[in-house]
Amino acid sequence: MVEKTKRILTGDRPTGKLHLGHYVGSLQNRVKLQYDYDTFLIIADVQALTTNFEKPEKLSKNVRQVAKDYLAVGIDPDKTTIFVQSLVPEIAELTVFYSMIVTVNQLRHNPTIKSEAEQYGYNDMTYGFLGYPVSQAADITFCKADLVPVGSDQLPHVEQTRRIARKFNQLYAPVFPEPEALISDFPRLVGLDGENKMSKSLGNAIYLADNAEEVGQKIMQAKTDPARIRKDDPGHPEVCTVYEYHKAFNTEEAADIEEMCCAGTIGCVACKKNLAAKINKLLKPTRQKRQKYEENEQLLDEILLAGTKKARDIAQDTMAEVREAMQLDYFSV
Amino acid sequence: MVEKTKRILTGDRPTGKLHLGHYVGSLQNRVKLQYDYDTFLIIADVQALTTNFEKPEKLSKNVRQVAKDYLAVGIDPDKTTIFVQSLVPEIAELTVFYSMIVTVNQLRHNPTIKSEAEQYGYNDMTYGFLGYPVSQAADITFCKADLVPVGSDQLPHVEQTRRIARKFNQLYAPVFPEPEALISDFPRLVGLDGENKMSKSLGNAIYLADNAEEVGQKIMQAKTDPARIRKDDPGHPEVCTVYEYHKAFNTEEAADIEEMCCAGTIGCVACKKNLAAKINKLLKPTRQKRQKYEENEQLLDEILLAGTKKARDIAQDTMAEVREAMQLDYFSV
Ligand code: SF4
Ligand code: SF4
Repeated sequence: MVEKTKRILTGDRPTGKLHLGHYVGSLQNRVKLQYDYDTFLIIADVQALTTNFEKPEKLSKNVRQVAKDYLAVGIDPDKTTIFVQSLVPEIAELTVFYSMIVTVNQLRHNPTIKSEAEQYGYNDMTYGFLGYPVSQAADITFCKADLVPVGSDQLPHVEQTRRIARKFNQLYAPVFPEPEALISDFPRLVGLDGENKMSKSLGNAIYLADNAEEVGQKIMQAKTDPARIRKDDPGHPEVCTVYEYHKAFNTEEAADIEEMCCAGTIGCVACKKNLAAKINKLLKPTRQKRQKYEENEQLLDEILLAGTKKARDIAQDTMAEVREAMQLDYFSV
Repeated sequence: MVEKTKRILTGDRPTGKLHLGHYVGSLQNRVKLQYDYDTFLIIADVQALTTNFEKPEKLSKNVRQVAKDYLAVGIDPDKTTIFVQSLVPEIAELTVFYSMIVTVNQLRHNPTIKSEAEQYGYNDMTYGFLGYPVSQAADITFCKADLVPVGSDQLPHVEQTRRIARKFNQLYAPVFPEPEALISDFPRLVGLDGENKMSKSLGNAIYLADNAEEVGQKIMQAKTDPARIRKDDPGHPEVCTVYEYHKAFNTEEAADIEEMCCAGTIGCVACKKNLAAKINKLLKPTRQKRQKYEENEQLLDEILLAGTKKARDIAQDTMAEVREAMQLDYFSV
């Protein structure tokens, strides 16, 4: 007997272009996972509204951008269902139903809500922000995902969803699987400043959409070992951002570079040029794929609309089950 | 120039049969209003879930019951759009969007939430209960209602909706009218026990669906002046439930009855029989109309489905405007 392929739900908020940090932290993994799992990739624009309701235009610009990033790195639309959250309104419906079976107290224990509350207080946050774990549960369960790839720090989020699914099943009928976390702990990539993790808001990111020249320039400006003044000063790769990137994107040569840097037998400029070449090599097929979608925006839209339609069909089937379980299917025979 | 007919939104939670308290407090008024306004009558089953999520079957049973009560008392489906909230999922969508622009603090100031919190605390209430003013704002605005008939104690609810509509319009685009309260202060009808207001949960109600015999029996058991032992004891109508009902349902004779009761020239049994006859006379056309829908459940369903379809069409138009205003209309040309 063949086991049913397990379904994965994962995705991003469309708040900006994706960068190498995303590549290392999730995209690379998703490209692999799509061959073994039925992968659903949500472009979570409604969830992004919780923190961007004052500038929704930021989201509309980035929905296609993120989709292009996905396709460029090798997400295959024949294997992965890419869809836009706001175009599947059944997720909002499910969110409203779930909101009846979650207490305010449970939400306050969610780590993200908690840390936000420490900064701003519970009462000043929006109602939607407080409820984003509820909305997340609807994202994960509307398609009955079995697995959610997360870092181990995000386990409490998945636990919240499991709790909601369990409560629904107990109260009404066993409609939802309790999704499990697929732990994928990838090191966070440091930004070009060498101090913070790579992030668009800090301006320390190399974007997947950067061209070869931009990548070269950015790497030239990356923070290196400040103790190296002259080319033959012995370096300390452990404090150098460029060395971090070699470990991530040039694994084969990383050990040699470490040795040469410590011995002072390689200059920083040469070391950076080498890195830039490696990253550009990695991004070359990505750029070619992106080019295809940039030349044919209609193709991109077709992929997004087909994925969204597929997600919506599934969502409608699920909501029919939900209505039946809750005995809200008044007019079906 | 003819002014556009103003739209009213009002309705009930389908948690049970409607009774004479509803008749006096809202139904009678709605029947009148439908001739001057474009009336939308929501059967608010999703909102009822906030307090009935553990027994949704209670709602499904009562959706048709409430609809029948509406039609029986004279709501005309050609004038009034009767619809079921859960069958207009766009209301859930709008609720989710509104949840981004309302703070937890604003909700805590809502009188209903406040009084519930005093009893149970904020943290033990469900997320959905905390958010019911948000859901209510979506109910009122999805159809761009101009007016909401409320008692003056409910003004803060309408103010909450006005605030949400205003904030939306300011942030995005002027999509929504700020609905106004149509103050309709009707005295609350006392229950048969003479102590509490008429309410299904206290078992002190005369239902619109009660037959003549049931009405007669219930009135016979109504609390009267306990000081009247013998027929010719002088009575105190101001403490008598039956007299309260005469004032509500037998206005013409109420003054005479007061006089006779005080003088001890009318017996309680005769007084009650007179009242029962008056209430049964009032309910006679109601019973005939109800009969029609009880003999033809399909007709009832057709009315509900037609009203719901009309509401949903309007909701979809409104959501198209909302998406455009929020720039979430990615794929429209
Ligand atoms: S040689 Fe390379 S690893 Fe060493 S400090 Fe310079 S850039 Fe960093
Ligand atoms: S006579 Fe009528 S009004 Fe007076 S106490 Fe009896 S029931 Fe009440």
